Amino acid sequence: MRVALYQNNPVFGEIERNLDEAVNAVAGREFDLLVLPELFATGYQFKTVGEAVTMGDQAGAGLTFERLRILSREKDAVVVYGFPERHGMKCFNSALAILPDASYFLYQKTHLFDTEKGIFSPGETGFFTFTFRGIRLGMMICFDWRFPESARKLALAGAQIICHPSNLILPHCPDAMITRALENNVFTVTADRVGKESRSGHELQFIGSSRIISPGGMILAQLGQDDVGYLSAEINPADAENKKITPRNDIFQDRRPEYY
Amino acid sequence: MRVALYQNNPVFGEIERNLDEAVNAVAGREFDLLVLPELFATGYQFKTVGEAVTMGDQAGAGLTFERLRILSREKDAVVVYGFPERHGMKCFNSALAILPDASYFLYQKTHLFDTEKGIFSPGETGFFTFTFRGIRLGMMICFDWRFPESARKLALAGAQIICHPSNLILPHCPDAMITRALENNVFTVTADRVGKESRSGHELQFIGSSRIISPGGMILAQLGQDDVGYLSAEINPADAENKKITPRNDIFQDRRPEYY
Repeated sequence: MRVALYQNNPVFGEIERNLDEAVNAVAGREFDLLVLPELFATGYQFKTVGEAVTMGDQAGAGLTFERLRILSREKDAVVVYGFPERHGMKCFNSALAILPDASYFLYQKTHLFDTEKGIFSPGETGFFTFTFRGIRLGMMICFDWRFPESARKLALAGAQIICHPSNLILPHCPDAMITRALENNVFTVTADRVGKESRSGHELQFIGSSRIISPGGMILAQLGQDDVGYLSAEINPADAENKKITPRNDIFQDRRPEYY
Repeated sequence: MRVALYQNNPVFGEIERNLDEAVNAVAGREFDLLVLPELFATGYQFKTVGEAVTMGDQAGAGLTFERLRILSREKDAVVVYGFPERHGMKCFNSALAILPDASYFLYQKTHLFDTEKGIFSPGETGFFTFTFRGIRLGMMICFDWRFPESARKLALAGAQIICHPSNLILPHCPDAMITRALENNVFTVTADRVGKESRSGHELQFIGSSRIISPGGMILAQLGQDDVGYLSAEINPADAENKKITPRNDIFQDRRPEYY
């Protein structure tokens, strides 16, 4: 299967523009899975909960969902993207996976980063997997990487591919994702953004470096710190099924939970 | 405090030679913690359990223990080293931490690598911490790195410094230890060996690359793939106490075990 991502540089608040750009960028491409960054269509730095609620969508509704639902059907592919999820007067930092039949799965970010805590509510979905044509996928968002339990939980639940929409600021995540892939023998697809964003009085610099990584910890494809663009790799998800890394080591059977 | 390690290239079976070399190499040095590699005095590739039992020591006894007990007292430092631990007719791949007062703590490797499974019994001590002058230390051995639960368990038990005697063959560990340090905000001291060993019909190449890493994921000191030598760094163990990485993120308080 072909897994893909789009590394963008959204203009804060210009949802239609950002959405158009991403959809147009992948129009001529073929893929089975597309991962878009965290909050890819809105931008990152909301000033208030109210602003996030106003710009947010309910899960499975709104312009962004509609456009990506059509994309999913046209491409016959799973589309995963990050968005502010309006939920009454609260907002979650969420990711949605849309399948070609318009069914979808919602993940709410478990571990909020820094100022996100003033805007978003901590996720309540937890980590889970879903299936698309026999392939098991899971989602985590950005800062979830820092907690090894995130990817671990997904992998133990059977995830072969971890979709990882991100808006990275700290420098360590791209390399840490190699460890996440290795320790779980899974594919990881980190879709990050680039550029600067200056709201709320402090400027954030996003680090790009989106990566597709194999269960063996190999970087199959990556983008630079400033690239805006599409990235893809051909993978065999079954490679993530076999947890055997030596003739005598199956890294899941070798776990000894009685000591954890 | 000064943490140190010695990266060696032992000759299989020549315990006294290997021991002399390590003790002589650190004779003129000052340190508060010294970490020596996994099975540093015996070599790695035992052919049979009987051979490991014969060359092994009971915990807290034998030539290696006696020499390092004296070193610990002379240096007024903790000495951590890996050795084959004879236990009746069984053998564990163990590490011992000796304190200047001759008290010691035993850790038995939890996750055995490849052919070790034919020689050693799986460890039964689990992961624990101990205290030396208010500094909390923990031990894990080599392949334990691949399981995020190892370092996590130690850090949640309060470890400020993870002592990590190793005989590394796979290439990924040195970089993965940056992730281990980052995700737990702890210091890590990986003491590896170099050189080749050719017994039991297959040649192993050890990758050296011993590293001392800070809670922020910085490599404070490192050795090359072929270097034999001493390495040290001055650290403040209290840097591992504060798990705060942004004004709003304490990476231990931010954990959400209900979702793991």
